[in-house]
Amino acid sequence: MKKNKRIGMLLDELTSNPNRSFSSKHFCDKYGIAKSSLSEDIRLVNEILGENGSGRIQSVSGAGGGIKYIPGISNERAAALQQDLIEALSDKSRMLGGGFLYTSDIMFDGHFVEDMARIFAGRFAETPADYVVTVETKGIALAARVAFLLDLPLVVIRREARYSEGSTVSINYFSGAAEHIQKMSIAKRAVEPGSKAIVIDDFMRGGGSLKGIRDILGEFDIMTVATGVALVAREPERKKVSDYLPILIIEEIDEENGIIRISANPEIFL
Amino acid sequence: MKKNKRIGMLLDELTSNPNRSFSSKHFCDKYGIAKSSLSEDIRLVNEILGENGSGRIQSVSGAGGGIKYIPGISNERAAALQQDLIEALSDKSRMLGGGFLYTSDIMFDGHFVEDMARIFAGRFAETPADYVVTVETKGIALAARVAFLLDLPLVVIRREARYSEGSTVSINYFSGAAEHIQKMSIAKRAVEPGSKAIVIDDFMRGGGSLKGIRDILGEFDIMTVATGVALVAREPERKKVSDYLPILIIEEIDEENGIIRISANPEIFL
Repeated sequence: MKKNKRIGMLLDELTSNPNRSFSSKHFCDKYGIAKSSLSEDIRLVNEILGENGSGRIQSVSGAGGGIKYIPGISNERAAALQQDLIEALSDKSRMLGGGFLYTSDIMFDGHFVEDMARIFAGRFAETPADYVVTVETKGIALAARVAFLLDLPLVVIRREARYSEGSTVSINYFSGAAEHIQKMSIAKRAVEPGSKAIVIDDFMRGGGSLKGIRDILGEFDIMTVATGVALVAREPERKKVSDYLPILIIEEIDEENGIIRISANPEIFL
Repeated sequence: MKKNKRIGMLLDELTSNPNRSFSSKHFCDKYGIAKSSLSEDIRLVNEILGENGSGRIQSVSGAGGGIKYIPGISNERAAALQQDLIEALSDKSRMLGGGFLYTSDIMFDGHFVEDMARIFAGRFAETPADYVVTVETKGIALAARVAFLLDLPLVVIRREARYSEGSTVSINYFSGAAEHIQKMSIAKRAVEPGSKAIVIDDFMRGGGSLKGIRDILGEFDIMTVATGVALVAREPERKKVSDYLPILIIEEIDEENGIIRISANPEIFL
């Protein structure tokens, strides 16, 4: 096989299996090449990913080592994403009253989701975890993509215990500006006591839902090791949880004067 | 730039933007190459995708033409996926009683979702549509990936009208073995009257939910042009909808004798 083609096939296989480790032998056998040629190919694949700002190849030699693709996003692409999101979200017709913005189209837009997921996957790549967890509904597409990029299972907490979830554990929690009591429910078989979770959600105001997620995971002795949230409201300043990474911050929604002010969180940059 | 690297960058850009059309000029300018070199590169990228069984490049010359990546999956990979799914689903511990199987882990497994989505994206690539539609919750990861691969927006129908959806239209429908009345609700601003939808869902037994989806879309004069369902139960033989493409068929769940029998649908092959 010609080198041109080999590089493309290598790239396609690695990027289709993010955070999965392949042995050098796997590729050497597949393409009938020596380790030295493979190293050169991998170097080139890494260069391509760097140029496109979409991650890097990690190559660890020796026992327990391997070659894997660590997905990510360059600071340049991440900043461009933040600007595109701010522009899309600042459309006045999104105002729903009560300080709410219509965001469903954005949270289910494949390209926005892909780049947001790359931010979280890049930031949380070195945080050992057993699953990605979200609560239905608007964060599911994002959480699913983060889980794929980190090669972790996705666990979706339901609002209502459903028959199709088998036996479940439920909690009640307070959420929303009016502090309503809400419920969430998790399938017992979806999680393992004593494990670690990365939590992903689409929106946070006071942090009630995120606290609910941490609490229900706590029922299984599961530690939340990282939390990524697409959009976080500046108010209330005092949240029910700390240690979370927002992509954007909603500074102000002034319905009377038609002002939406959103800022980019610089902490996402690596 | 060396040809090796150019091929990799081309492949990465095209596969990161499925079903998006790029002009020849875009690539010729970016890499400083002539159209003839680009054609040769594209031919090679197409060969790589063919070899990996992950789709093809469509290249249409002239006005309105362009170069785009049509994602798909080879029949060989699709058949392997069906077998892997059957094996995973046949685990007796999945039996929940009442003919239900626990499938949440599978419907949220990134690699299963990716390959199932490639089946639907490959089959529905030539079906003009304006969005992909699903109803929450278990089909969302799959539908989101189909939408991304087809470069379409995703619309998620909610069970309950939520404040964050703005003004909604709701319907009641009958679903489940016991024919319970259920509700679904769609944000008015998510859809355009007179448009076309591809519907994706995780499971169908009698077809009540899918009929509900078609009915609520019908309220907006939206035609359902294709329907993909991961798992369809053989019983009841008479469904409330026709024209749907299952990946797998649940032939029998016999709880008393611990038998789960699932078959692969050969109609998915192209």
